[in-house]
Amino acid sequence: MKGFIDDDFLLHNDTARELFHNVAKLQPIIDYHCHLNPAQICENAKFGTITKLWLGGDHYKWRLMRAAGVDERFITGNAGERDKFQKWAETLAFAIGNPLYHWSHLELKRYFGFDETLDGKSASRAWELCNEKLASNEFTPRNVIMSSNVEALCTTDDPADSLEYHQKLKDAKDFKTTVLPAWRPDKALNIEKPGFTDYIGALSKAAGVDIKDMESLKEALFSRMDYFHQNGCRLSDHALEYVMYVPASEKEADGILKSRLAGEAVNQSQALGYRTYMLQTLGRRYNKLDWAMQLHYGCKRDNSPSFYRSLGPDAGFDCMDNRQISGQLADFLASFGDELPRTIVYSLNPNDDDIVQSVVNCFQTGAGFTKVHQGSAWWFNDHIDGMEKQMRSLANNGYLAGFLGMLTDSRSFISYPRHEYFRRILCNLIGKWVEDGMFPRDRETLGLMVKNICCENARAYFRFPGVRR
Amino acid sequence: MKGFIDDDFLLHNDTARELFHNVAKLQPIIDYHCHLNPAQICENAKFGTITKLWLGGDHYKWRLMRAAGVDERFITGNAGERDKFQKWAETLAFAIGNPLYHWSHLELKRYFGFDETLDGKSASRAWELCNEKLASNEFTPRNVIMSSNVEALCTTDDPADSLEYHQKLKDAKDFKTTVLPAWRPDKALNIEKPGFTDYIGALSKAAGVDIKDMESLKEALFSRMDYFHQNGCRLSDHALEYVMYVPASEKEADGILKSRLAGEAVNQSQALGYRTYMLQTLGRRYNKLDWAMQLHYGCKRDNSPSFYRSLGPDAGFDCMDNRQISGQLADFLASFGDELPRTIVYSLNPNDDDIVQSVVNCFQTGAGFTKVHQGSAWWFNDHIDGMEKQMRSLANNGYLAGFLGMLTDSRSFISYPRHEYFRRILCNLIGKWVEDGMFPRDRETLGLMVKNICCENARAYFRFPGVRR
Amino acid sequence: MKGFIDDDFLLHNDTARELFHNVAKLQPIIDYHCHLNPAQICENAKFGTITKLWLGGDHYKWRLMRAAGVDERFITGNAGERDKFQKWAETLAFAIGNPLYHWSHLELKRYFGFDETLDGKSASRAWELCNEKLASNEFTPRNVIMSSNVEALCTTDDPADSLEYHQKLKDAKDFKTTVLPAWRPDKALNIEKPGFTDYIGALSKAAGVDIKDMESLKEALFSRMDYFHQNGCRLSDHALEYVMYVPASEKEADGILKSRLAGEAVNQSQALGYRTYMLQTLGRRYNKLDWAMQLHYGCKRDNSPSFYRSLGPDAGFDCMDNRQISGQLADFLASFGDELPRTIVYSLNPNDDDIVQSVVNCFQTGAGFTKVHQGSAWWFNDHIDGMEKQMRSLANNGYLAGFLGMLTDSRSFISYPRHEYFRRILCNLIGKWVEDGMFPRDRETLGLMVKNICCENARAYFRFPGVRR
Repeated sequence: MKGFIDDDFLLHNDTARELFHNVAKLQPIIDYHCHLNPAQICENAKFGTITKLWLGGDHYKWRLMRAAGVDERFITGNAGERDKFQKWAETLAFAIGNPLYHWSHLELKRYFGFDETLDGKSASRAWELCNEKLASNEFTPRNVIMSSNVEALCTTDDPADSLEYHQKLKDAKDFKTTVLPAWRPDKALNIEKPGFTDYIGALSKAAGVDIKDMESLKEALFSRMDYFHQNGCRLSDHALEYVMYVPASEKEADGILKSRLAGEAVNQSQALGYRTYMLQTLGRRYNKLDWAMQLHYGCKRDNSPSFYRSLGPDAGFDCMDNRQISGQLADFLASFGDELPRTIVYSLNPNDDDIVQSVVNCFQTGAGFTKVHQGSAWWFNDHIDGMEKQMRSLANNGYLAGFLGMLTDSRSFISYPRHEYFRRILCNLIGKWVEDGMFPRDRETLGLMVKNICCENARAYFRFPGVRR
Repeated sequence: MKGFIDDDFLLHNDTARELFHNVAKLQPIIDYHCHLNPAQICENAKFGTITKLWLGGDHYKWRLMRAAGVDERFITGNAGERDKFQKWAETLAFAIGNPLYHWSHLELKRYFGFDETLDGKSASRAWELCNEKLASNEFTPRNVIMSSNVEALCTTDDPADSLEYHQKLKDAKDFKTTVLPAWRPDKALNIEKPGFTDYIGALSKAAGVDIKDMESLKEALFSRMDYFHQNGCRLSDHALEYVMYVPASEKEADGILKSRLAGEAVNQSQALGYRTYMLQTLGRRYNKLDWAMQLHYGCKRDNSPSFYRSLGPDAGFDCMDNRQISGQLADFLASFGDELPRTIVYSLNPNDDDIVQSVVNCFQTGAGFTKVHQGSAWWFNDHIDGMEKQMRSLANNGYLAGFLGMLTDSRSFISYPRHEYFRRILCNLIGKWVEDGMFPRDRETLGLMVKNICCENARAYFRFPGVRR
Repeated sequence: MKGFIDDDFLLHNDTARELFHNVAKLQPIIDYHCHLNPAQICENAKFGTITKLWLGGDHYKWRLMRAAGVDERFITGNAGERDKFQKWAETLAFAIGNPLYHWSHLELKRYFGFDETLDGKSASRAWELCNEKLASNEFTPRNVIMSSNVEALCTTDDPADSLEYHQKLKDAKDFKTTVLPAWRPDKALNIEKPGFTDYIGALSKAAGVDIKDMESLKEALFSRMDYFHQNGCRLSDHALEYVMYVPASEKEADGILKSRLAGEAVNQSQALGYRTYMLQTLGRRYNKLDWAMQLHYGCKRDNSPSFYRSLGPDAGFDCMDNRQISGQLADFLASFGDELPRTIVYSLNPNDDDIVQSVVNCFQTGAGFTKVHQGSAWWFNDHIDGMEKQMRSLANNGYLAGFLGMLTDSRSFISYPRHEYFRRILCNLIGKWVEDGMFPRDRETLGLMVKNICCENARAYFRFPGVRR
């Protein structure tokens, strides 16, 4: 019997242990998709208490507390910080099988040296220890990032964003991590949403272009893309309920846009047509600029109207959307012809793993590497079962050796142990195959493969400026 | 190598064995959803032969025999009881991997002390032994229930039912099990079915209300709900092809109902609108009465027209329906706002496990316990793989410690070993996590969790009258 | 730790080893669905180089090479054979977890005695050895088939095919394998495709019937079916995006056909109506002729327009279609009533495993064997995880003992080790259940079951002429 989260956590065979300790854990992190706030990295202020750091904005933890029946007062309400921490500790103590159990304990160990298990009784000791460390001048966003061996990270940014913090960070002394923006133009694509026209106003201002039709919208977006590119952006991201393919001509899309800007409502079919057109237009531009395109789909957001009113988005009230039609995804990618950019497809619905893998492999070309990817297990899936399932799907029907590997997708500065978690799961899976006689025990091949998946594949794929190739 | 169905059946590690033998197996059963006939419990007559008991109405067994190619004469036809039993034994002998193999052998062991494996050769010995025991005056429905350590059970009852047997059972001496009704108003919601108007007539009579529009329908149903409540009902149940959300106003629903009562046909969209309205109306009432609402969805029934004509419903000709759109399920639950009752969602399609878990966790509130549940693996899923999959889904994305646990969903009086089966699988899963270093070996926490899932969570959630809290 | 692909490859317990070595591997192969070219078997010419044999037409390998980023020149382009082989070897060397890794190495071992692992370094030795063997006069299609212990195989043939090669093969001396045609009338059902009217012309000619309406179409098809039957055909096959049920009367289908033959376009609903009618009409005929009906659904083909133009179909650009509605599949099968032929349903979408199993078991009748089957894991699913998942689904909800077992579905003459692969996985699964105490260690029952699944069930089900019953 193994000890709880010991050195060989999740490593159930010799090959796995060898690969993790001598290869995987030594690799730097290239966190190519996260939601860190660049202003916070730039300001580099201390975090405050462990409650602020852990429970201030982490809707994963909020959601688990609600599932356990904890009163909202102790989650996002006005209870005291110590009391909130207590409720979290009591919730976590019974959260068997949940990835938060592992992530939280890894964070306690790696960043705070807290080696006990967290529960209602040990909470007071954890509270003291964590807050003491957090009070030190060393425990800053930048130090945490550097001590986590993060070579580069990409934030998630709106086209109208000034990128001022990214610019300042470029000149930051003693901060070795490359921080780059990523382009997320959802607000320009969600034409049916209430805030659309306001957003177009903000975008007009940022681009210095009066947006009044498709031509000027493209001019504005392309100008912002050039600006992002100059600031090191090499990666876009789109959040979609599903990847639709409802082709519309430029003229049709222009008409839909103009009527929306004139204050008229758009129906669902118009919204889908506009969105298809825009995504194609942006995608071809990504290809020209040599950016990669990320498609995150399968989320239905903000399902609790009352909590949405009080807390806004990203508060733990999202669910899977299961409407993806594989044919539309395939037809959308096919519509690019030779202009398809490097593309990564993530589904929030784990039933889509094999489907996505079957689709992306219809669009591979001889790029020297895997061009179109199934993304790493995402959000509701970034637990042991979900990550292993995604990797098995990839191996069964595609080329696991070309996998781009893990990203945190996180708002938290201490979430890097998720890379450790992923790497342990990866090494364990590969090791098991080897020890079961399903792949030769060829240390060189195995080591190269693990290294590539942990870091080198992403490095070669994204070609971030300022990051060693 | 383990022996076949020995004491440690399904328990593959020490922690599992400790938890099962010293915690799980000692807990009473609260079988909060089954299809036992209350008249049979009340009358408490002997069962007849093992053929009658086992093959008289169990469409799971019929279905397996058909899949094995057995002639219908030996299933529901006019072959002799001994011959039918023989065919069943011969079928079962090769049913490797099927839960009926395990259930049947557990039943043979636990209720009849038959320790051989059943096959064509041992069938005669099983036939003798079982029928001998069944002939004894001790082998009655009530004794079987009590000897199975059932503290409470809920039958499944129509709003028009008199509940006379439940009332009589309340006064039954020497019968310690609480038998409560559960409210299943499907017939009042299936407005498109041929028997609808006849059913409304029966309901009118039972409620003493002349149902001619929505107002009188609600009056009748609410009056029956009060009656059910007085008789201990705390739980409803709905069988749906899928959980739709096609909002209709009271006026629209009233119009649809009136035209149906006037003999007109309703189209699909009207039926969905009516059903949405009714389910919302009933759900708010459940919330008021502090009942829990069960939604069983994902079944397409009676797929063989010819067998439906000869055998009626529940004869082994049902399949999974895979049309659930997660967005409609979420929107339906969201439509309740603060009036959402405690709710349990069961899907017959195992692909929905993660989806349902992602939806229910959008509607948790600080009730002190998990308020909205993914139900236990149901029907086509209550085998080892299905139960483990459902528990992993729950643990990965929710709070396994709050799980309501097992129910038999059965028409058979000797199906309680399914609780044993479930508990072994639960303990094995938890034990494996512990021994793999994924959760601390904290006997107190583990024991409490197992006890709660086996029994205490259901006790606290349903608050059945007459059952110890 | 096991050696790589040793004698006990995939066999992780004693029972599995006993069952594989003493039962499974001794059984002949009945490959009831493949895509071998009967002309090639008939001509019995040598294969040329290993590049021709392996990479000449195998779109599985092409697809993996593209996923690894190999330039198309080395896949289907004009690079030299040795260079193509080199690229394949370099790709394969990192293809951990992919079934091609195992299949390729099994083929190297079983047919060429090459015992190394294939990679960029060993490629030259493999190239030499394989080509040397391939140059020998013994290494012919027929010898490969016979040495693989293939008792019978069914090719896949168009109704307009002359079957001349099947006829010649009947008289081939020293060739013990029965080679039969299978009826695949897709072109007559795909009324919306561009080539439909041309095809109808070819069919008219083959049948000697001037097809101008439904009556003459049926006459032509039925006449060809009689011809196929005389030539030993006992099996049909249909490729469908999904199994639709859009009932159309004979009169409606006749109208749709006539307008199509008159050069008018058909809309989607007409195409589905026509196809439903045709499939019902053919299915009833299969039943009359005592043929089995195979339904392969869930594939969206030819997703890359540019590669389709250059390479045509079956070139590695297909994906899963996920639109199957279980209700339509059930209603389609139900529509046959007593005239449902023996039927095998294969889905390309692994999410459908449990769904298909739940549907087929609604249509079993007392045939003495399983009448309606879930087919073996197909194409994107014929890897270890996919095959085990399909067998677990079958065991959990149906009768694994009645399973028809493996088929290659292959265009390659050396793909028979896929049967070996399947049999190892089967024995391992059964052995694990036994050693975990979930089924008795009854060697006779287990051996019979394994033998039946490997070969005897298919023998009894298809009743091929010339094949021992």
